[in-house]
Amino acid sequence: MSEVLNNLKTRRSIRKYTDEPVTDEQISQIIEAGLYAASGMGRQSPIILAVTDRAVRDELAEMNAAVMHREGTDPFYGAPYVLVVLADKNVPTGIYDGSLALGNMMLAAHELGLGTCWIHRAKEVFNSKRGKEILKQAGVEGDYEGVGNLILGHPDTSVQPSAAPRKENRVFYIK
Amino acid sequence: MSEVLNNLKTRRSIRKYTDEPVTDEQISQIIEAGLYAASGMGRQSPIILAVTDRAVRDELAEMNAAVMHREGTDPFYGAPYVLVVLADKNVPTGIYDGSLALGNMMLAAHELGLGTCWIHRAKEVFNSKRGKEILKQAGVEGDYEGVGNLILGHPDTSVQPSAAPRKENRVFYIK
Repeated sequence: MSEVLNNLKTRRSIRKYTDEPVTDEQISQIIEAGLYAASGMGRQSPIILAVTDRAVRDELAEMNAAVMHREGTDPFYGAPYVLVVLADKNVPTGIYDGSLALGNMMLAAHELGLGTCWIHRAKEVFNSKRGKEILKQAGVEGDYEGVGNLILGHPDTSVQPSAAPRKENRVFYIK
Repeated sequence: MSEVLNNLKTRRSIRKYTDEPVTDEQISQIIEAGLYAASGMGRQSPIILAVTDRAVRDELAEMNAAVMHREGTDPFYGAPYVLVVLADKNVPTGIYDGSLALGNMMLAAHELGLGTCWIHRAKEVFNSKRGKEILKQAGVEGDYEGVGNLILGHPDTSVQPSAAPRKENRVFYIK
């Protein structure tokens, strides 16, 4: 099987991480893959907020837990970084475009031997007053909706998630 | 650059196709990549309707054009096949999950030397009475929303789309 098809099949969502740092170069490569995702009308509307600061990462995790009413837990599974994708609210394909950016970043990270997991509730977090403040402080202007939080780090290889069997009845043919 | 990162960067949306057939084996490989996309809570909720029948492909193209009030045009750009991804309306992450499946299929097709383009308005087409009939005839049960139509075929290599420059101000850092 080609490297690419193998990459697509072997990527897993990682829910346990080590503290080992990811290099700036690796983060840049992952983000670049996200920027090259397809987008409606080629608008390139999604933006990426790359959080490598531990305090802000922790705050986003807390806000995320609060959305679920699960204060005190870490919904980011100990991953040291989070790449948040947001969609321009004025672009009708924004959510779809943002999802494709997240997908490309997952695959690039996997190729680099890193782990990711899409953690949801970015919408609620970045619709909050504090979420909007964080965006503004990072330099984001305009009206954006959170699409997803991609947590990132080195997988703890003591846990080796295997793919769940693919469910039946997901493909239909008109031949 | 690794094959995978190169694949992510060099995939383009293809808007001109030849009539050369795509093999069943290739279509299966592309669909398999879509089935392995991440999904919220691992629910594997998206389904794929693979249309290789020319008459139904043409009908879907006509319905798609009608949504835009552009009857008589072919929004599928002459591509011989379409892989429609649909999301279970009862799954809150359905649209996001479906988008990831589309993204994986784009990348798998590119790896196989084939071309794709996400054509929108699957939502409107499969919310229509005729769209629902087509789903039912194909054996789909339940309440599904169209996420996207992935047109598929051999690229007409007389047209070689290059990547538009990436826009500025899409990445923000909190370091």
